[in-house]
Amino acid sequence: MKIAILGTGMVGQTVATALAAKGHEIIVGTRDPVKSKAAAEPNKYGMPGFGTWHQANQGIRVGTFAEAAAFGEVVFNASNGGTTLETLGLAGRDNLAAKVLVDLSNDLDFSKGMPPTLAVRDEAGAGLGERIQAAFPNVRVVKALSTMSAFVMVNPAIVAGGESTVFLSGDDAAAKTVVHGILQSLGWTDILDLGGIATSRGVEMLLPIWLSLFGVLGQKPYNFKVVR
Amino acid sequence: MKIAILGTGMVGQTVATALAAKGHEIIVGTRDPVKSKAAAEPNKYGMPGFGTWHQANQGIRVGTFAEAAAFGEVVFNASNGGTTLETLGLAGRDNLAAKVLVDLSNDLDFSKGMPPTLAVRDEAGAGLGERIQAAFPNVRVVKALSTMSAFVMVNPAIVAGGESTVFLSGDDAAAKTVVHGILQSLGWTDILDLGGIATSRGVEMLLPIWLSLFGVLGQKPYNFKVVR
Repeated sequence: MKIAILGTGMVGQTVATALAAKGHEIIVGTRDPVKSKAAAEPNKYGMPGFGTWHQANQGIRVGTFAEAAAFGEVVFNASNGGTTLETLGLAGRDNLAAKVLVDLSNDLDFSKGMPPTLAVRDEAGAGLGERIQAAFPNVRVVKALSTMSAFVMVNPAIVAGGESTVFLSGDDAAAKTVVHGILQSLGWTDILDLGGIATSRGVEMLLPIWLSLFGVLGQKPYNFKVVR
Repeated sequence: MKIAILGTGMVGQTVATALAAKGHEIIVGTRDPVKSKAAAEPNKYGMPGFGTWHQANQGIRVGTFAEAAAFGEVVFNASNGGTTLETLGLAGRDNLAAKVLVDLSNDLDFSKGMPPTLAVRDEAGAGLGERIQAAFPNVRVVKALSTMSAFVMVNPAIVAGGESTVFLSGDDAAAKTVVHGILQSLGWTDILDLGGIATSRGVEMLLPIWLSLFGVLGQKPYNFKVVR
Protein backbone atom coordinates (compact mmCIF):
# COMPACT_ATOMS: atom_id res chain seq x y z
CA MET A 1 0.00 0.00 0.00
CA LYS A 2 1.16 3.57 -0.65
CA ILE A 3 1.38 5.27 2.73
CA ALA A 4 2.28 8.86 3.55
CA ILE A 5 3.55 9.87 6.98
CA LEU A 6 3.22 13.57 7.76
CA GLY A 7 5.84 14.49 10.34
CA THR A 8 9.53 13.69 10.91
CA GLY A 9 9.66 13.39 14.70
CA MET A 10 9.87 10.31 16.87
CA VAL A 11 6.40 9.11 15.90
CA GLY A 12 6.89 9.74 12.18
CA GLN A 13 10.25 7.99 12.09
CA THR A 14 9.08 4.99 14.09
CA VAL A 15 5.88 4.45 12.11
CA ALA A 16 7.64 4.97 8.76
CA THR A 17 10.32 2.40 9.58
CA ALA A 18 7.79 -0.15 10.80
CA LEU A 19 5.42 0.19 7.85
CA ALA A 20 8.31 0.08 5.35
CA ALA A 21 9.43 -3.15 6.98
CA LYS A 22 5.96 -4.57 6.28
CA GLY A 23 6.52 -3.95 2.57
CA HIS A 24 4.51 -0.75 2.16
CA GLU A 25 5.71 2.07 -0.12
CA ILE A 26 6.35 4.94 2.27
CA ILE A 27 6.86 8.64 1.79
CA VAL A 28 7.54 10.94 4.71
CA GLY A 29 6.17 14.45 4.32
CA THR A 30 7.85 17.47 5.85
CA ARG A 31 7.62 21.23 5.60
CA ASP A 32 11.11 21.50 4.11
CA PRO A 33 12.64 18.27 2.77
CA VAL A 34 16.11 19.79 2.25
CA LYS A 35 16.28 21.08 5.80
CA SER A 36 14.84 17.86 7.27
CA LYS A 37 17.38 15.69 5.43
CA ALA A 38 20.18 17.88 6.80
CA ALA A 39 19.00 17.56 10.43
CA ALA A 40 21.63 15.55 12.28
CA GLU A 41 21.16 16.46 15.95
CA PRO A 42 19.40 13.85 18.12
CA ASN A 43 16.29 15.12 19.84
CA LYS A 44 15.90 15.35 23.60
CA TYR A 45 14.62 11.75 23.77
CA GLY A 46 17.77 10.45 22.08
CA MET A 47 16.07 9.80 18.76
CA PRO A 48 18.38 10.53 15.82
CA GLY A 49 17.91 13.70 13.82
CA PHE A 50 15.72 13.07 10.81
CA GLY A 51 18.69 13.34 8.41
CA THR A 52 20.60 10.69 10.36
CA TRP A 53 17.52 8.48 10.39
CA HIS A 54 17.07 8.96 6.65
CA GLN A 55 20.70 8.00 5.94
CA ALA A 56 19.86 4.64 7.51
CA ASN A 57 16.51 4.42 5.68
CA GLN A 58 17.28 5.59 2.17
CA GLY A 59 14.60 3.40 0.66
CA ILE A 60 12.00 5.66 2.23
CA ARG A 61 11.13 8.71 0.13
CA VAL A 62 10.97 12.19 1.60
CA GLY A 63 8.87 14.97 0.12
CA THR A 64 6.86 18.01 0.96
CA PHE A 65 3.61 17.58 2.87
CA ALA A 66 1.81 18.08 -0.45
CA GLU A 67 3.91 15.51 -2.34
CA ALA A 68 3.39 13.01 0.44
CA ALA A 69 -0.37 13.54 0.60
CA ALA A 70 -0.66 13.23 -3.18
CA PHE A 71 1.24 9.92 -3.14
CA GLY A 72 -0.37 8.18 -0.18
CA GLU A 73 -3.53 6.10 -0.37
CA VAL A 74 -3.48 6.21 3.40
CA VAL A 75 -2.03 9.22 5.22
CA PHE A 76 -0.75 9.07 8.80
CA ASN A 77 -0.81 12.37 10.66
CA ALA A 78 2.29 12.22 12.86
CA SER A 79 2.60 15.97 13.16
CA ASN A 80 2.46 17.98 16.35
CA GLY A 81 -1.13 18.39 17.47
CA GLY A 82 -0.68 22.12 17.81
CA THR A 83 0.30 22.48 14.15
CA THR A 84 -1.79 19.67 12.65
CA LEU A 85 -4.43 21.81 10.96
CA GLU A 86 -1.71 23.96 9.38
CA THR A 87 0.17 20.82 8.27
CA LEU A 88 -2.96 19.39 6.67
CA GLY A 89 -3.54 22.72 4.93
CA LEU A 90 -0.03 22.51 3.45
CA ALA A 91 -0.69 18.89 2.48
CA GLY A 92 -3.57 20.25 0.45
CA ARG A 93 -7.29 19.69 0.42
CA ASP A 94 -7.25 18.17 -3.08
CA ASN A 95 -4.35 15.84 -2.30
CA LEU A 96 -6.15 14.55 0.80
CA ALA A 97 -9.62 14.25 -0.76
CA ALA A 98 -11.29 10.91 0.00
CA LYS A 99 -8.07 9.56 1.57
CA VAL A 100 -7.99 7.64 4.84
CA LEU A 101 -6.27 9.90 7.39
CA VAL A 102 -5.00 8.08 10.47
CA ASP A 103 -4.68 10.73 13.15
CA LEU A 104 -1.99 9.88 15.70
CA SER A 105 -1.67 13.36 17.13
CA ASN A 106 -2.41 14.94 20.50
CA ASP A 107 -3.28 18.57 21.05
CA LEU A 108 -0.74 19.27 23.77
CA ASP A 109 0.17 22.72 25.02
CA PHE A 110 3.86 23.00 25.91
CA SER A 111 3.69 26.76 26.53
CA LYS A 112 3.58 26.39 30.32
CA GLY A 113 6.52 23.97 30.48
CA MET A 114 6.65 20.25 31.19
CA PRO A 115 4.57 18.22 31.51
CA PRO A 116 2.42 19.65 28.73
CA THR A 117 -1.31 20.09 29.25
CA LEU A 118 -4.06 18.86 26.97
CA ALA A 119 -5.84 21.61 25.02
CA VAL A 120 -9.06 19.61 24.73
CA ARG A 121 -12.15 19.79 26.85
CA ASP A 122 -15.27 17.66 26.80
CA GLU A 123 -17.52 19.73 24.54
CA ALA A 124 -18.98 18.50 21.26
CA GLY A 125 -16.54 19.29 18.48
CA ALA A 126 -13.71 20.35 20.78
CA GLY A 127 -11.46 17.33 20.18
CA LEU A 128 -8.62 17.48 17.67
CA GLY A 129 -9.87 14.53 15.63
CA GLU A 130 -13.28 16.18 15.47
CA ARG A 131 -11.76 19.51 14.42
CA ILE A 132 -9.74 17.81 11.66
CA GLN A 133 -12.88 16.06 10.38
CA ALA A 134 -14.84 19.33 10.45
CA ALA A 135 -12.09 21.26 8.65
CA PHE A 136 -11.61 18.52 6.00
CA PRO A 137 -15.09 17.04 5.53
CA ASN A 138 -14.16 14.91 2.52
CA VAL A 139 -11.21 13.27 4.31
CA ARG A 140 -11.94 9.96 6.07
CA VAL A 141 -10.45 10.62 9.51
CA VAL A 142 -9.73 7.69 11.83
CA LYS A 143 -8.25 8.40 15.25
CA ALA A 144 -6.01 5.54 16.36
CA LEU A 145 -2.77 4.82 18.23
CA SER A 146 -2.63 8.25 19.87
CA THR A 147 -2.76 6.80 23.39
CA MET A 148 0.68 5.20 23.60
CA SER A 149 4.37 5.69 22.88
CA ALA A 150 5.60 5.34 19.30
CA PHE A 151 7.41 2.12 20.21
CA VAL A 152 4.20 0.50 21.41
CA MET A 153 2.25 1.72 18.35
CA VAL A 154 4.33 -0.43 16.04
CA ASN A 155 5.13 -3.28 18.41
CA PRO A 156 2.36 -3.99 20.92
CA ALA A 157 4.18 -7.11 22.10
CA ILE A 158 6.74 -5.00 24.00
CA VAL A 159 4.10 -4.30 26.66
CA ALA A 160 4.45 -7.10 29.18
CA GLY A 161 1.58 -8.60 31.09
CA GLY A 162 -1.06 -9.03 28.42
CA GLU A 163 -2.44 -7.69 25.21
CA SER A 164 -3.34 -4.03 25.52
CA THR A 165 -6.03 -2.10 23.65
CA VAL A 166 -5.92 0.23 20.65
CA PHE A 167 -9.00 2.40 20.06
CA LEU A 168 -10.58 3.30 16.70
CA SER A 169 -12.85 6.32 16.22
CA GLY A 170 -14.17 7.51 12.89
CA ASP A 171 -17.31 8.24 10.94
CA ASP A 172 -16.36 6.12 7.88
CA ALA A 173 -16.72 2.37 8.46
CA ALA A 174 -14.70 1.40 5.37
CA ALA A 175 -11.84 3.66 6.47
CA LYS A 176 -11.86 2.00 9.88
CA THR A 177 -11.66 -1.40 8.18
CA VAL A 178 -8.52 -0.28 6.31
CA VAL A 179 -6.93 0.95 9.54
CA HIS A 180 -7.98 -2.23 11.35
CA GLY A 181 -6.04 -4.24 8.76
CA ILE A 182 -2.92 -2.11 9.16
CA LEU A 183 -3.15 -2.45 12.95
CA GLN A 184 -3.46 -6.23 12.69
CA SER A 185 -0.36 -6.31 10.48
CA LEU A 186 1.54 -4.51 13.27
CA GLY A 187 0.49 -7.19 15.76
CA TRP A 188 -2.59 -5.63 17.35
CA THR A 189 -5.24 -8.07 18.52
CA ASP A 190 -7.42 -5.99 20.86
CA ILE A 191 -8.75 -3.33 18.45
CA LEU A 192 -11.75 -1.60 20.01
CA ASP A 193 -14.04 0.43 17.74
CA LEU A 194 -15.65 3.12 19.89
CA GLY A 195 -17.82 4.62 17.16
CA GLY A 196 -17.79 7.92 15.30
CA ILE A 197 -15.08 10.56 15.34
CA ALA A 198 -16.81 12.28 18.28
CA THR A 199 -15.59 9.41 20.47
CA SER A 200 -11.99 10.42 19.72
CA ARG A 201 -12.41 13.30 22.18
CA GLY A 202 -12.52 10.85 25.07
CA VAL A 203 -9.58 8.95 23.59
CA GLU A 204 -7.57 12.17 23.45
CA MET A 205 -8.46 12.86 27.07
CA LEU A 206 -6.41 9.81 28.12
CA LEU A 207 -3.26 11.88 27.63
CA PRO A 208 -3.09 13.54 31.08
CA ILE A 209 -3.17 10.20 32.91
CA TRP A 210 -0.77 8.77 30.31
CA LEU A 211 1.67 11.54 31.27
CA SER A 212 1.20 10.81 35.01
CA LEU A 213 1.89 7.15 34.32
CA PHE A 214 5.06 8.12 32.45
CA GLY A 215 6.14 9.88 35.63
CA VAL A 216 5.55 6.71 37.67
CA LEU A 217 6.60 4.02 35.19
CA GLY A 218 9.19 5.95 33.17
CA GLN A 219 10.75 4.09 30.28
CA LYS A 220 8.96 0.83 31.09
CA PRO A 221 6.56 0.12 28.19
CA TYR A 222 2.93 0.40 29.23
CA ASN A 223 -0.46 0.86 27.69
CA PHE A 224 -4.13 0.94 28.58
CA LYS A 225 -6.29 -2.13 28.30
CA VAL A 226 -10.04 -2.26 28.58
CA VAL A 227 -10.54 -5.42 30.62
CA ARG A 228 -13.99 -6.94 29.99
CA MET B 1 -13.44 1.29 61.25
CA LYS B 2 -16.03 4.08 61.48
CA ILE B 3 -16.86 5.05 57.91
CA ALA B 4 -19.19 7.77 56.63
CA ILE B 5 -20.67 7.66 53.16
CA LEU B 6 -21.93 11.02 51.88
CA GLY B 7 -24.61 10.36 49.27
CA THR B 8 -27.58 8.02 48.94
CA GLY B 9 -27.45 7.16 45.23
CA MET B 10 -26.28 4.02 43.49
CA VAL B 11 -22.64 4.57 44.49
CA GLY B 12 -23.47 5.43 48.10
CA GLN B 13 -25.78 2.43 48.54
CA THR B 14 -23.37 -0.02 46.92
CA VAL B 15 -20.32 1.13 48.85
CA ALA B 16 -22.22 1.30 52.15
CA THR B 17 -23.52 -2.26 51.77
CA ALA B 18 -20.10 -3.62 50.83
CA LEU B 19 -18.20 -1.90 53.63
CA ALA B 20 -20.83 -2.90 56.20
CA ALA B 21 -20.42 -6.50 55.05
CA LYS B 22 -16.68 -6.19 55.83
CA GLY B 23 -17.58 -5.37 59.44
CA HIS B 24 -17.13 -1.59 59.38
CA GLU B 25 -19.48 0.71 61.30
CA ILE B 26 -21.23 2.69 58.57
CA ILE B 27 -23.27 5.85 58.56
CA VAL B 28 -24.80 7.22 55.39
CA GLY B 29 -25.08 11.01 55.26
CA THR B 30 -27.83 12.78 53.39
CA ARG B 31 -29.23 16.29 53.15
CA ASP B 32 -32.56 15.23 54.71
CA PRO B 33 -32.59 11.86 56.51
CA VAL B 34 -36.38 11.81 56.94
CA LYS B 35 -36.99 12.42 53.25
CA SER B 36 -34.28 9.96 52.16
CA LYS B 37 -35.69 7.19 54.37
CA ALA B 38 -39.12 7.77 52.79
CA ALA B 39 -37.81 7.49 49.21
CA ALA B 40 -39.29 4.30 47.74
CA GLU B 41 -39.15 4.83 43.96
CA PRO B 42 -36.37 2.94 42.11
CA ASN B 43 -34.04 5.18 40.13
CA LYS B 44 -33.67 5.03 36.35
CA TYR B 45 -30.98 2.34 36.63
CA GLY B 46 -33.30 0.04 38.59
CA MET B 47 -31.61 0.66 41.91
CA PRO B 48 -34.10 0.72 44.79
CA GLY B 49 -35.08 4.02 46.32
CA PHE B 50 -32.92 4.80 49.33
CA GLY B 51 -35.79 4.12 51.74
CA THR B 52 -36.34 0.67 50.24
CA TRP B 53 -32.60 0.00 50.41
CA HIS B 54 -32.51 1.12 54.03
CA GLN B 55 -35.40 -1.18 54.97
CA ALA B 56 -33.14 -4.03 53.86
CA ASN B 57 -30.07 -2.57 55.59
CA GLN B 58 -31.37 -1.37 58.93
CA GLY B 59 -28.04 -1.98 60.63
CA ILE B 60 -26.63 0.94 58.69
CA ARG B 61 -27.20 4.31 60.34
CA VAL B 62 -28.52 7.29 58.41
CA GLY B 63 -27.86 10.87 59.44
CA THR B 64 -27.31 14.34 58.14
CA PHE B 65 -24.13 15.08 56.21
CA ALA B 66 -22.80 16.75 59.35
CA GLU B 67 -23.67 13.82 61.65
CA ALA B 68 -22.05 11.41 59.20
CA ALA B 69 -18.87 13.47 58.85
CA ALA B 70 -18.58 13.83 62.63
CA PHE B 71 -18.90 10.04 63.09
CA GLY B 72 -16.61 8.78 60.33
CA GLU B 73 -12.87 8.31 60.73
CA VAL B 74 -12.84 7.87 56.96
CA VAL B 75 -15.39 9.70 54.81
CA PHE B 76 -16.39 8.54 51.32
CA ASN B 77 -17.69 11.27 49.05
CA ALA B 78 -20.36 9.52 46.96
CA SER B 79 -22.24 12.70 46.17
CA ASN B 80 -22.86 14.13 42.76
CA GLY B 81 -19.76 15.88 41.46
CA GLY B 82 -21.77 18.97 40.64
CA THR B 83 -22.89 19.38 44.26
CA THR B 84 -19.85 17.95 46.06
CA LEU B 85 -18.43 21.22 47.37
CA GLU B 86 -21.85 22.19 48.73
CA THR B 87 -22.24 18.72 50.29
CA LEU B 88 -18.86 18.99 51.98
CA GLY B 89 -19.78 22.45 53.23
CA LEU B 90 -22.92 20.97 54.83
CA ALA B 91 -20.80 18.13 56.26
CA GLY B 92 -18.84 20.85 58.01
CA ARG B 93 -15.23 21.95 58.00
CA ASP B 94 -14.73 21.04 61.66
CA ASN B 95 -16.35 17.62 61.30
CA LEU B 96 -14.08 16.82 58.34
CA ALA B 97 -10.86 18.24 59.82
CA ALA B 98 -7.88 15.86 59.45
CA LYS B 99 -10.18 13.07 58.19
CA VAL B 100 -9.36 10.88 55.21
CA LEU B 101 -11.79 11.83 52.45
CA VAL B 102 -12.07 9.25 49.67
CA ASP B 103 -13.43 11.12 46.68
CA LEU B 104 -15.42 8.86 44.35
CA SER B 105 -17.15 11.65 42.47
CA ASN B 106 -17.05 12.93 38.91
CA ASP B 107 -17.80 16.48 37.85
CA LEU B 108 -20.32 15.64 35.14
CA ASP B 109 -22.58 18.19 33.46
CA PHE B 110 -26.01 16.74 32.66
CA SER B 111 -27.46 20.08 31.53
CA LYS B 112 -27.08 19.27 27.81
CA GLY B 113 -28.68 15.83 28.07
CA MET B 114 -27.18 12.35 27.89
CA PRO B 115 -24.42 11.39 27.78
CA PRO B 116 -23.19 13.98 30.27
CA THR B 117 -19.99 15.90 29.57
CA LEU B 118 -17.05 16.28 31.93
CA ALA B 119 -16.68 19.74 33.43
CA VAL B 120 -12.92 19.38 33.88
CA ARG B 121 -10.13 20.58 31.66
CA ASP B 122 -6.43 20.01 31.90
CA GLU B 123 -5.35 23.12 33.78
CA ALA B 124 -3.59 23.10 37.14
CA GLY B 125 -6.21 23.12 39.89
CA ALA B 126 -9.16 22.54 37.55
CA GLY B 127 -9.92 18.97 38.60
CA LEU B 128 -12.61 18.24 41.17
CA GLY B 129 -10.27 16.38 43.52
CA GLU B 130 -7.90 19.35 43.36
CA ARG B 131 -10.74 21.81 44.02
CA ILE B 132 -11.90 19.80 47.04
CA GLN B 133 -8.36 19.75 48.46
CA ALA B 134 -7.98 23.50 47.85
CA ALA B 135 -11.36 24.29 49.48
CA PHE B 136 -10.68 22.00 52.48
CA PRO B 137 -6.92 22.22 53.03
CA ASN B 138 -6.95 20.33 56.33
CA VAL B 139 -8.86 17.36 54.88
CA ARG B 140 -6.74 14.48 53.55
CA VAL B 141 -8.26 13.97 50.12
CA VAL B 142 -7.60 10.73 48.23
CA LYS B 143 -9.14 10.28 44.80
CA ALA B 144 -9.91 6.61 44.14
CA LEU B 145 -12.47 4.34 42.49
CA SER B 146 -14.02 7.13 40.41
CA THR B 147 -13.19 5.41 37.11
CA MET B 148 -15.60 2.48 37.21
CA SER B 149 -19.16 1.42 37.99
CA ALA B 150 -20.22 1.07 41.61
CA PHE B 151 -20.47 -2.70 41.19
CA VAL B 152 -16.83 -2.94 40.11
CA MET B 153 -15.70 -0.60 42.93
CA VAL B 154 -16.72 -3.11 45.58
CA ASN B 155 -16.16 -6.31 43.63
CA PRO B 156 -13.27 -6.10 41.15
CA ALA B 157 -13.55 -9.83 40.45
CA ILE B 158 -16.71 -9.29 38.36
CA VAL B 159 -14.55 -7.88 35.55
CA ALA B 160 -13.59 -10.86 33.43
CA GLY B 161 -10.27 -11.23 31.65
CA GLY B 162 -7.81 -10.15 34.30
CA GLU B 163 -7.23 -7.93 37.24
CA SER B 164 -7.96 -4.31 36.43
CA THR B 165 -6.43 -1.19 37.94
CA VAL B 166 -7.60 1.26 40.60
CA PHE B 167 -5.76 4.58 40.80
CA LEU B 168 -4.81 6.51 43.95
CA SER B 169 -4.06 10.25 43.97
CA GLY B 170 -3.48 12.31 47.06
CA ASP B 171 -1.01 14.58 48.80
CA ASP B 172 -1.04 12.68 52.13
CA ALA B 173 0.89 9.41 52.04
CA ALA B 174 -0.60 8.09 55.30
CA ALA B 175 -4.12 8.73 54.00
CA LYS B 176 -3.30 6.80 50.84
CA THR B 177 -2.08 3.91 52.98
CA VAL B 178 -5.44 3.83 54.80
CA VAL B 179 -7.32 3.81 51.48
CA HIS B 180 -4.95 1.17 50.09
CA GLY B 181 -5.92 -1.11 52.96
CA ILE B 182 -9.64 -0.59 52.39
CA LEU B 183 -9.19 -1.30 48.67
CA GLN B 184 -7.30 -4.52 49.42
CA SER B 185 -10.12 -5.60 51.72
CA LEU B 186 -12.52 -5.19 48.78
CA GLY B 187 -10.36 -7.48 46.63
CA TRP B 188 -8.20 -4.98 44.76
CA THR B 189 -4.73 -6.19 43.84
CA ASP B 190 -3.58 -3.69 41.18
CA ILE B 191 -3.59 -0.43 43.17
CA LEU B 192 -1.57 2.19 41.30
CA ASP B 193 -0.43 5.28 43.20
CA LEU B 194 -0.08 8.09 40.66
CA GLY B 195 1.18 10.73 43.11
CA GLY B 196 -0.32 13.92 44.48
CA ILE B 197 -3.89 15.13 44.20
CA ALA B 198 -2.97 17.01 40.99
CA THR B 199 -2.79 13.64 39.26
CA SER B 200 -6.49 13.09 39.98
CA ARG B 201 -7.29 15.51 37.15
CA GLY B 202 -6.06 12.98 34.58
CA VAL B 203 -7.93 10.22 36.42
CA GLU B 204 -11.13 12.27 36.19
CA MET B 205 -10.51 12.79 32.46
CA LEU B 206 -11.04 9.03 31.91
CA LEU B 207 -14.78 9.61 32.20
CA PRO B 208 -15.54 10.56 28.58
CA ILE B 209 -13.98 7.36 27.20
CA TRP B 210 -15.62 5.40 30.03
CA LEU B 211 -18.97 6.71 28.80
CA SER B 212 -18.12 5.76 25.18
CA LEU B 213 -17.22 2.28 26.38
CA PHE B 214 -20.55 2.05 28.20
CA GLY B 215 -22.20 2.72 24.83
CA VAL B 216 -20.23 -0.13 23.21
CA LEU B 217 -20.11 -2.65 26.07
CA GLY B 218 -23.33 -1.78 27.89
CA GLN B 219 -24.01 -3.74 31.05
CA LYS B 220 -20.99 -5.99 30.63
CA PRO B 221 -18.62 -5.20 33.52
CA TYR B 222 -15.42 -3.53 32.35
CA ASN B 223 -12.59 -1.46 33.71
CA PHE B 224 -9.29 0.07 32.72
CA LYS B 225 -6.04 -1.71 33.34
CA VAL B 226 -2.59 -0.26 32.95
CA VAL B 227 -0.72 -3.15 31.35
CA ARG B 228 3.03 -2.96 32.07
